[in-house]
Amino acid sequence: MRMNGLDEFGLIQHLTQRLKQHDSAQAGVRVGIGDDAAVLTESPGEDWLATTDSMVQGVHFLSTTMSWLDIGYKCVAASISDIAAMGGVPKHVLMSLVIPKNLSLTQLEQMYDGIAECCTSYGCHVVGGNVATTTGPAVLTSTVLGTVPAGQALLRSQARPGDVVFVTGSVGGSAAGLAYLMTGGILPADEALAVCNGHQRPRPQITAGIVLRETGASACNDISDGLASELNEIAKASRVRLRIERTRIPVAPEVRNFARSKGLDPLEYAWYGGEDYQLVGTASAFAFAKALSRLQSIGVMLTQIGRVEAGDGVVAEGANQGLEVIEPKGYNHFTSGSAGV
Amino acid sequence: MRMNGLDEFGLIQHLTQRLKQHDSAQAGVRVGIGDDAAVLTESPGEDWLATTDSMVQGVHFLSTTMSWLDIGYKCVAASISDIAAMGGVPKHVLMSLVIPKNLSLTQLEQMYDGIAECCTSYGCHVVGGNVATTTGPAVLTSTVLGTVPAGQALLRSQARPGDVVFVTGSVGGSAAGLAYLMTGGILPADEALAVCNGHQRPRPQITAGIVLRETGASACNDISDGLASELNEIAKASRVRLRIERTRIPVAPEVRNFARSKGLDPLEYAWYGGEDYQLVGTASAFAFAKALSRLQSIGVMLTQIGRVEAGDGVVAEGANQGLEVIEPKGYNHFTSGSAGV
Repeated sequence: MRMNGLDEFGLIQHLTQRLKQHDSAQAGVRVGIGDDAAVLTESPGEDWLATTDSMVQGVHFLSTTMSWLDIGYKCVAASISDIAAMGGVPKHVLMSLVIPKNLSLTQLEQMYDGIAECCTSYGCHVVGGNVATTTGPAVLTSTVLGTVPAGQALLRSQARPGDVVFVTGSVGGSAAGLAYLMTGGILPADEALAVCNGHQRPRPQITAGIVLRETGASACNDISDGLASELNEIAKASRVRLRIERTRIPVAPEVRNFARSKGLDPLEYAWYGGEDYQLVGTASAFAFAKALSRLQSIGVMLTQIGRVEAGDGVVAEGANQGLEVIEPKGYNHFTSGSAGV
Repeated sequence: MRMNGLDEFGLIQHLTQRLKQHDSAQAGVRVGIGDDAAVLTESPGEDWLATTDSMVQGVHFLSTTMSWLDIGYKCVAASISDIAAMGGVPKHVLMSLVIPKNLSLTQLEQMYDGIAECCTSYGCHVVGGNVATTTGPAVLTSTVLGTVPAGQALLRSQARPGDVVFVTGSVGGSAAGLAYLMTGGILPADEALAVCNGHQRPRPQITAGIVLRETGASACNDISDGLASELNEIAKASRVRLRIERTRIPVAPEVRNFARSKGLDPLEYAWYGGEDYQLVGTASAFAFAKALSRLQSIGVMLTQIGRVEAGDGVVAEGANQGLEVIEPKGYNHFTSGSAGV
């Protein structure tokens, strides 16, 4: 790999500078980028969280709908969102970048800047990684390490009959943004910007995850594959049924407007769209009330969308459509999907 | 992703079984595969080590010279080797698999079996990961987390003038194996097997790394890019010169035989071949003697190949070739290389 007169090692060094600008205070890092492995100090009283996620060009993103700045940002965001779903705090990031040879230095710099921007937003740092070239599409893999008080990670498996089913923020925005970017549509400028932003710059809900853990939520998942898939994962892991009220699902006005302009049901984006990186979960009525109060006071939306019952699967009711079983269809991206190992 | 009547989630579940067979006792794992992130318990008195490495089909491996069993194995081995270079113990593995759609279920099963085999060999476990499809070449990314007594990780930066330069095992075998697999050659069957094995099934030197740390080695690196590159990394990080004696570099007899049959200098494989996953480093004469004694008693080869001096860079002497500056040329694989972020 050689570019603009820089050999491979010179290029890596040049790009790594862009990460280090943001790394003035790396708490818990004895050795960061530059040796065989990062050396991280222990966190007494805390468990470690570890998650990894890959984004494949042409499958998970198109360079026509996302800038390389967005692409770098979103790859880190996807893994940070998994830490949010466990009620944890992201600390350290490892990046593996597999890059087509025709990518320009400017595009590479943008990718690194996007990675650095997301890390800075969430107070974490790139501590290591790997760069390689490919003859195929770009593949970005982020691994994020976080911490959570020992034994308190929010799992998918602890939903109990009688619990409230909740979701943070609003859902369906990322899929609507992608549809708008790919096909265009009639939307006022501010609404167009909002849906594009939902797709290009999703905001993992670290603060909400911490509040939900501290107030005693029983189960939690982040919305990477759409509400249908995530709710089914909770139902399956907890061996319960989730009964959802369609009319309570929070869909932003611009998403409703865009869906209607296309003659679509806005809930399609919410159920099957994915990549909203909001949190969906369950809590006792008491724990939900506490979380609601704390989150409202800091301007984070939390909405009850249903109830946990004995049984299995996910059912939706309301809006004159009767009771419908919601299958765990995931987001199929452009050609196919991805899932946990 | 759908295969042999299994949908995506069924397929993942089917493949994950192959990993869990080997996961009866996951020390330090509160939550493994199946939630948003793995939950790992703290290790009092220890630092964490974290490293990630990607292998790209057509760049780092060819499916004509490696079985998918070998490919899965080697991807994990590459990251475990980085833990060995820090004197650590590998504990947890996250895999991100980006898979061409035309890969068969049998090939996928072999890849998982290779991953499981390497994990079992080194006493670690897959605790999470991600699977996605691609229209391009396969990209396997392994992230390995390990531990090391707090503050005792072996770094590249602590070599001191007067230290011995050492290498474990023998070097150049992986590159000779690749050359044999790609071009053929005249070798007795047992020697052919040995060189192929060096390329397809390298053995990360975890035990040697622990002994070198415990006996006080000053610097250490694993040989992923060839002796020339790794020695230069130590020289640069430690701000010293490494003076190497060519005749002392341990090259296996079958590698010498194969190189001679091709009219090549066997040391070319050692300097620039890479992927031997042996350890190269420095130690005081006293620490080296202690390490040598302990490693000999357990059948691990350790060889002095030179000395640390004041100055910079790497020079080689001996074998009537005079003094030569060894440039940090890395392994160029088939088309291009890879390096740390």
